Amino acid sequence: MRKNPKIEVINIGSELLLHKLNTDITLISNILLKHSFRISKCIIVGDSKEEIKKAIENSFRETDVLIITGGLGPTFDDLTREILSEFFNRELIFNGEIWEKITDRFKKRGVEIPEINRKQAYIIDGSYVIENEVGTAPGMIIEEKGKLIIALPGPPGELKPMLEKSIKKINEKFPVETTRMVKFSISSVPESVVETKLKDIFEKEENEKLILAHPNLIEIIFFFPPSIYDKKVKQLDGVLKERFGENYLGINPPALPELIGKILKEKKLKIAIAESCTGGLTCKLITDIPGSSEYFQGGFITYSNILKKRTLKVKKTTLRKYGAVSKEVAIEMAKGAKKQGKADVSLSFTGIAGPTGGSKEKPVGLVWIGIGLPKNKYKAYKFIFSGDRQTIRERAVQTGFGLLRQEIIKNEK
Amino acid sequence: MRKNPKIEVINIGSELLLHKLNTDITLISNILLKHSFRISKCIIVGDSKEEIKKAIENSFRETDVLIITGGLGPTFDDLTREILSEFFNRELIFNGEIWEKITDRFKKRGVEIPEINRKQAYIIDGSYVIENEVGTAPGMIIEEKGKLIIALPGPPGELKPMLEKSIKKINEKFPVETTRMVKFSISSVPESVVETKLKDIFEKEENEKLILAHPNLIEIIFFFPPSIYDKKVKQLDGVLKERFGENYLGINPPALPELIGKILKEKKLKIAIAESCTGGLTCKLITDIPGSSEYFQGGFITYSNILKKRTLKVKKTTLRKYGAVSKEVAIEMAKGAKKQGKADVSLSFTGIAGPTGGSKEKPVGLVWIGIGLPKNKYKAYKFIFSGDRQTIRERAVQTGFGLLRQEIIKNEK
Repeated sequence: MRKNPKIEVINIGSELLLHKLNTDITLISNILLKHSFRISKCIIVGDSKEEIKKAIENSFRETDVLIITGGLGPTFDDLTREILSEFFNRELIFNGEIWEKITDRFKKRGVEIPEINRKQAYIIDGSYVIENEVGTAPGMIIEEKGKLIIALPGPPGELKPMLEKSIKKINEKFPVETTRMVKFSISSVPESVVETKLKDIFEKEENEKLILAHPNLIEIIFFFPPSIYDKKVKQLDGVLKERFGENYLGINPPALPELIGKILKEKKLKIAIAESCTGGLTCKLITDIPGSSEYFQGGFITYSNILKKRTLKVKKTTLRKYGAVSKEVAIEMAKGAKKQGKADVSLSFTGIAGPTGGSKEKPVGLVWIGIGLPKNKYKAYKFIFSGDRQTIRERAVQTGFGLLRQEIIKNEK
Repeated sequence: MRKNPKIEVINIGSELLLHKLNTDITLISNILLKHSFRISKCIIVGDSKEEIKKAIENSFRETDVLIITGGLGPTFDDLTREILSEFFNRELIFNGEIWEKITDRFKKRGVEIPEINRKQAYIIDGSYVIENEVGTAPGMIIEEKGKLIIALPGPPGELKPMLEKSIKKINEKFPVETTRMVKFSISSVPESVVETKLKDIFEKEENEKLILAHPNLIEIIFFFPPSIYDKKVKQLDGVLKERFGENYLGINPPALPELIGKILKEKKLKIAIAESCTGGLTCKLITDIPGSSEYFQGGFITYSNILKKRTLKVKKTTLRKYGAVSKEVAIEMAKGAKKQGKADVSLSFTGIAGPTGGSKEKPVGLVWIGIGLPKNKYKAYKFIFSGDRQTIRERAVQTGFGLLRQEIIKNEK
């Protein structure tokens, strides 16, 4: 059996080093993983010719597949094409067909094509062209010394479909019996408990494995050869079901918001959300999912007490007696969301995300999560999360999703 | 004048390559930038001893400062300590004081300390220890051949304060007249227009410069030597004010949600938000900012038409006649948000984020943005954004922030 081809990624663009990391690497990693490929190394460099050359030189020596993103634009600091041409000692050849396509794209937008874009119609001699249906820069695949060099544009919207197309070439070049990945997820159980409960499994299993900890979610990943994949997955699925019960989310499950969406659709339930400290993050994560309008009625971001009273009908006396961050308010928020939102289930958050606003009795990180269920059932849970403002918010929302899923399942039984 | 020290980052952790890229690199880049340092290269590798060694070897040769994050944990696959010890041929020495601190940390949590954590009390001979006040792994700074190697733990909450502490050491070692960064931002103007309007500036300016395009925001960055910094910044500030008027956001301005927060606080205005297609993202971005409760009343995520009618009082006849994605509904949503939210200004979004739900007249990407201003003034703007679901949502929200800022400023005049 042959092993997976070694894959390295070079991501080019000075923005990356300066500001917000773009999503290229995550995107590439996720697409490759879907096809059971892993990346062994990523290098992020600026638009410096010297650095890019050095990175390509080093990676080309080490890897089977080299994916290069960025630097295919039309401006003076887009250098990938020229560097590859030099490095592989292959000419850049003008391609009339590509030039026509680029020209067409500008025509359709009613814009005259700048002369600098002409550069994008030059293709490395002997390379395989990957069409760009979203932007102007075509991609290229070069074969050299039994290796593949895949050059793609950086903008995620262009990169994504073009990388999907390139996978075919990787599979053709490395028609291997690769290992296949499987992911099992467990929600609402601490990492150390998961590790302890699965100690025997981890010790026995000789194939590659990984534990990844996310807020309120542990992912366990294995890589198995195809010959034993099905058997192993079935066996582990049984073990996890037995040891983690409702906390076990299954084989290759989607993230919690999507999983909850599936359950709601299945059970024909509609949901509404009431958020205070989480400030819209819950609704945002639910509506990240296409088609969420099927089960998501809407949300109430009642950041001020006025709105808690006005839109969710939280009682003035409750707010006065217990304070906004309390079990009672969490429950009244969940009630208000269900009723005002004409929903069957609801989820509410009230807490102190910090960095200020905490007290001895109600410290930063304290969050009450309320849950509304069919048949007028309401529950609330108290948590004290650690971390900064963003971490506390993220942990609260993910914990809320975990609780909601379990309560819906329990309630049905 | 000496140039900035060259800085490279090696980020260790197999999670990075598998799943969601963590925030380490963005974090490091932002902290360094605050101190006018730039990163020239980042390398992301898994927990493979061979890969980590090779990365350290290559980077050590090239750089002045090498920041290594991750791999300082207690488990078998945390290898940074051992690899550095081997590479620099320096012993690992048990440090009783650190061991006591780690033990204390566990005691406080009422947990018995696992023997494996003992490993974290070993320090590379002759290195400078950076205390970890959030987690267990201490950081280390090694000086060798006039270079600094800074090893820090990966979790962002630990990395952040420890990197801040390390900056002092970088400044001591490279007491240089570095170049200083300045950022100017321009909102609601296409990149090509900014480039054209500033062509003369870019051609003349010999210092390093960069243009970064974000959704609805262009950042122009310059690096100037301290001797001319103030003069240059003042001069450019004048030019940009003159050429871009209200679209110019100023010198090193915060991001739009924070900038809007400042304006609202200054003018003592409260805001409420109504979101349909953007699904909570606007509220999330506003409440990312600590202290936003001072001006943010709350939001209405009226994803379903029922909620548009019930909570925002959008008229049934308006919905029927014009459809949910229309100028009329955007304006009624802005009205409803202002009134129901007891606010002075409001911002509303209704559109089609896709990937499905579009038609010939109302394609995916169509978004109406409504704005409510004091004195009962309402406006709405139509956009057709391109990109996938997330991009359309992000662009819509940032465009809305840009419009809102301008309308508030105009309205006051």
